[in-house]
Amino acid sequence: MEQELKEAAQQSPATGNSPQATDIKVFAPATVANVVCGFDVLGFAVNEPGDEVVMRVTNKPGITISKITGDDGRLPLDPAKNTVSVSVQHYLDSIDRKDLGLDIELHKKMPIGSGLGSSSASTVAGLFAVKTLLGDDTDVAKLLPFAMKGEEMACGHGHADNVAPALLGGFVLIRSYEPLDVIRLPHPPGLYCAIVFPDVDVPTREARQIIRNKILMKDAVTQWGNIAGLVSGLYTQDIDLIGRSMQDVLVEPVRSILIPDFYIMRELAMQAGAVSFGISGSGPSVFAFTRDEETARQITQTLQKHLAGIKINSNSYVSTINDAGPRVLG
Amino acid sequence: MEQELKEAAQQSPATGNSPQATDIKVFAPATVANVVCGFDVLGFAVNEPGDEVVMRVTNKPGITISKITGDDGRLPLDPAKNTVSVSVQHYLDSIDRKDLGLDIELHKKMPIGSGLGSSSASTVAGLFAVKTLLGDDTDVAKLLPFAMKGEEMACGHGHADNVAPALLGGFVLIRSYEPLDVIRLPHPPGLYCAIVFPDVDVPTREARQIIRNKILMKDAVTQWGNIAGLVSGLYTQDIDLIGRSMQDVLVEPVRSILIPDFYIMRELAMQAGAVSFGISGSGPSVFAFTRDEETARQITQTLQKHLAGIKINSNSYVSTINDAGPRVLG
Repeated sequence: MEQELKEAAQQSPATGNSPQATDIKVFAPATVANVVCGFDVLGFAVNEPGDEVVMRVTNKPGITISKITGDDGRLPLDPAKNTVSVSVQHYLDSIDRKDLGLDIELHKKMPIGSGLGSSSASTVAGLFAVKTLLGDDTDVAKLLPFAMKGEEMACGHGHADNVAPALLGGFVLIRSYEPLDVIRLPHPPGLYCAIVFPDVDVPTREARQIIRNKILMKDAVTQWGNIAGLVSGLYTQDIDLIGRSMQDVLVEPVRSILIPDFYIMRELAMQAGAVSFGISGSGPSVFAFTRDEETARQITQTLQKHLAGIKINSNSYVSTINDAGPRVLG
Repeated sequence: MEQELKEAAQQSPATGNSPQATDIKVFAPATVANVVCGFDVLGFAVNEPGDEVVMRVTNKPGITISKITGDDGRLPLDPAKNTVSVSVQHYLDSIDRKDLGLDIELHKKMPIGSGLGSSSASTVAGLFAVKTLLGDDTDVAKLLPFAMKGEEMACGHGHADNVAPALLGGFVLIRSYEPLDVIRLPHPPGLYCAIVFPDVDVPTREARQIIRNKILMKDAVTQWGNIAGLVSGLYTQDIDLIGRSMQDVLVEPVRSILIPDFYIMRELAMQAGAVSFGISGSGPSVFAFTRDEETARQITQTLQKHLAGIKINSNSYVSTINDAGPRVLG
């Protein structure tokens, strides 16, 4: 793989001998990891929200971060500490392009610590930007190990259930980490996703730590019956099966404690016609699948109204599943 | 459901007013449960071995068992203690046909306690026989709860991972027990199954009891990544993915202890070109998937030769996946 990347990069326009673009603006999407019954192995990308990275080739070797917006000053400008620059640096190292100078602007267009793969969206935008700038036309999946390096720094574990769908788009299964085995799953075309982010603090590291290390075999059997049902439903476009498979007897009972009125929100969403409802990643965002856009919008309104009633600010997003992954904006 | 069954049965030829058959001979297939990464939720049927039931309508209400062959005297002739008659009685009770007299012959054509769903094959043959005799044309899946009653008696638990594929044929997922949710999965048409039964004693009840009640979350995550990969591979006919997904970090390490030279047999099978290798049900039978019949035959020969070398008798079977389930022989 490294050899392919090197060859592609050495023929690249960003060596300075080409009239091609030396700056680029890229969007990468938010993602919903776990998908209720697929803890640590499933995720999908949405159309919005997401992050934007502007990347420019500079004359001085090394990476700088000149600007970060939308983060309320929470993210480091130091390129040795920012997940975007760290991932990009790993990529450049792997293709022997330490000589390259890059400046990065990161525009956060989504909340941090929301359970929507915020760091993944930034990292994937950065990696897709540098890959495109360098004219590297190898498979985008080959960026995954570099994106996972960023996740390791952001969350304390190099999981792929956000970065893989952010990078590849669509609905993704990470069957195995050693060796890495990532499988794109199909999905019914009309499936909509309603997301509500209640603005409370659920740090990813802590949300992982409350998960039990030991579980009951019978609960694990329930869970793998459900993930098998969900995958079957995705292939056969059986939305009823998708809905009844999306149950989590292991992680949700613990993590839901950190989310205000989680079970009330579930009840409201299901009453409003949701196919399924659950926690996005480690929370506090919640999501519902629906059969149409109108139902998704009604659910976000109902949940946001409920959260406002208990004095919690929130954001909401309605989207289909994003099959494209990252894209060049300009 | 009961109403449908009753209506079908009340119009049936076996009331004595019809010239239709009052005796029938039925075959039902052996099954491979668990399928390595789907403990308690996956199973598939094979073409051979299997059991045969001959059933005759008699003049005296109640069920008799006149003959059992091939069981070395191990199975009870008492209809209150035999899984076949008990399941058939449950079915008759449910359709208000306690008046019916039935005589059963059970011909065991497969080893008992082999991990190949021996009791399920008998039970399904009995239920399919009575359903067909009564001209009951409701969905065969409706017999599943009665077959599970038989399993409960035979194995101490009412699981469906043998009876469901024996009854429905093909590759089956039991997503949930409460409520019962059984899903037929597709499979690549050219997939062959090599089965070897080493003739050692592994009682199902004991084989269940050695399974740990508590497991590590990280192992469960590995397992549900694998079952999701297997289901995906079954839909996309990706035999490589099927093979690499069929790993079991939870049950096999414990149950393999009861099977002579299990890991040597795996090595031999994989070297001979198996796609995957594992324990059938609770063992001691083992099975391998292969891409063709010839490889399957070579694997059974190699494994039987190895077992003979350590003074263990064995039987072997080579089959495609049996999509038909039970069938009338005459």
